[in-house]
Amino acid sequence: MPRHQRGEVCVLRQMARSVLLPNSHQKGISQLKLQRHHASPILRPNPFNEWEALNVFNCAVVFHNGLFHMLYRAQGVDYVSRIGYAVSADGVDFNRLQQPILWPQSDLEKRGVEDPRVTYLADEGRFIMAYTAYSAQGITPMFAQSRNLITWQRIGPLVTGEKNKDHALFPRRIGGRYVSFHRPPPAMWLAYSDDLASWGSFQMLMEPRPGHWDGRTIGAGGVPIETEHGWLIIYHAYDDTRTYRFGAALLDLEDPSQVIHRPQDFILEPREPWERKGDVAMAIFTTANPVVDGTVYVYYGGADRVIGLATCQLDDLLEFARFG
Amino acid sequence: MPRHQRGEVCVLRQMARSVLLPNSHQKGISQLKLQRHHASPILRPNPFNEWEALNVFNCAVVFHNGLFHMLYRAQGVDYVSRIGYAVSADGVDFNRLQQPILWPQSDLEKRGVEDPRVTYLADEGRFIMAYTAYSAQGITPMFAQSRNLITWQRIGPLVTGEKNKDHALFPRRIGGRYVSFHRPPPAMWLAYSDDLASWGSFQMLMEPRPGHWDGRTIGAGGVPIETEHGWLIIYHAYDDTRTYRFGAALLDLEDPSQVIHRPQDFILEPREPWERKGDVAMAIFTTANPVVDGTVYVYYGGADRVIGLATCQLDDLLEFARFG
Repeated sequence: MPRHQRGEVCVLRQMARSVLLPNSHQKGISQLKLQRHHASPILRPNPFNEWEALNVFNCAVVFHNGLFHMLYRAQGVDYVSRIGYAVSADGVDFNRLQQPILWPQSDLEKRGVEDPRVTYLADEGRFIMAYTAYSAQGITPMFAQSRNLITWQRIGPLVTGEKNKDHALFPRRIGGRYVSFHRPPPAMWLAYSDDLASWGSFQMLMEPRPGHWDGRTIGAGGVPIETEHGWLIIYHAYDDTRTYRFGAALLDLEDPSQVIHRPQDFILEPREPWERKGDVAMAIFTTANPVVDGTVYVYYGGADRVIGLATCQLDDLLEFARFG
Repeated sequence: MPRHQRGEVCVLRQMARSVLLPNSHQKGISQLKLQRHHASPILRPNPFNEWEALNVFNCAVVFHNGLFHMLYRAQGVDYVSRIGYAVSADGVDFNRLQQPILWPQSDLEKRGVEDPRVTYLADEGRFIMAYTAYSAQGITPMFAQSRNLITWQRIGPLVTGEKNKDHALFPRRIGGRYVSFHRPPPAMWLAYSDDLASWGSFQMLMEPRPGHWDGRTIGAGGVPIETEHGWLIIYHAYDDTRTYRFGAALLDLEDPSQVIHRPQDFILEPREPWERKGDVAMAIFTTANPVVDGTVYVYYGGADRVIGLATCQLDDLLEFARFG
């Protein structure tokens, strides 16, 4: 179904397979770069809709019931962020609703609801949205829930009163508890909860690596991908020049606070004009990485103005995260 | 949730209750008129979208997973009918997708796909759309299926080569077989199927009543409503002046070819300017009557240009269909 650049196979993967077989699984891929979909940017501002006239960017994408459901951050001429909904059969051509599905409703959200990341809790049949509330009081990492992806009920914040965001819920309980990323700058942390309303056991997970591409600040990408070798994650980072890039890492399945491996190299950096220039220069920012038919679909905001799509094979990304 | 005119209670119902109690169930309501929602017409053409710039009218509406899902017929400046999707939490304010979700794909559909009626087969978890294919060869009553209401797979026609439409599938098998209305003019018929692909056992159900408001042609409304007293149906009809009206009737639960009762009077006729004038004058046409929290939501095309909503209480409509 996905109309993908199936032919655009990663050269390094082929090299690995031909050169290193039969032991390619021990050190299969030392480098990996995501492949941009040729249709990128796949979503752009819509000047006919006031609320999404200026920018559409960071988005959640959930593959459910045969469809890619996208919830995307949009800014109108008032620069307030609202969240829109779009749906697609192939993950590329999205059909969007005319009106937003989430907008500021409380004092904490006065300046916008931002950066949705949506997790499907399969055994509960409900979707959890992690989003950032923005107001004069600062930013607040919030959770909301839905059973249909259109109507959302707010649950509450992960923490309040701190400069904290980039939260994303793991897709199942671990050791009986819900687990979420969050980011008191500049590092990635975990938090734990019994009910999604009260959060604690805050624990640092990964720090920036000074001098590297991820030297200044790091934060979660989309929802962690469960694999036999661990939780596969994509994260964003920027360096001293404020250039954003994406990296990957692998966390222990039963204790995600244990980083199994964190490759040295990044997997995407700004290259296209729409990634380099926009509302925030050199900012690529991913908040979704659904896996469909073995392909990882990485959706990301391009310079806070448009939405891009880059992909890779799950097998390749996993090998890179293990051995890269 | 529905922001309804809860206060606008049917006077006749109150009269029935106060005057006829405690025997109101034996002959509770001899007349019933649907109450127009004050926001009607609730959907109008959108001049910014080519495909729905001219007319939006006959629609399916399914209440599922806490949402009203609407699939509506739209005509662009080419006068070809396509089917759009809109979603609502309250059944009144609909949020529509920018692009249609069904459009002509075969020779039989060249001039349009029209008049969707959607049935949810709960025990199979799938939706069935009955729609009319239109081409130079004439009209064909078609079926398609979906599990998500957005992507549809065509099943095939109920019949071909005849002037036949106004088909609507019952929401469960009866006596082991699927049952559908259809309309070889001027009457309402039933058809039966084991697989939704092959149809037979065609049987006449109800005829026009010459000289009456339903004297010239009659055809199905939305999906039959299952009640303890039988299948409650709403149908459309027109008279010699081509004025469309809606009526109700009650069919036997186990043998829907048996009409238990068919009241004399209609339940809605054109009154508002947008029901009387438009692309087809004096045409009101209903293809959806979902029941939510005891309220029957009757959606209908107004003069083939806009979509109206009128409601009544299920209890009242059932009493009218039994004793009216």
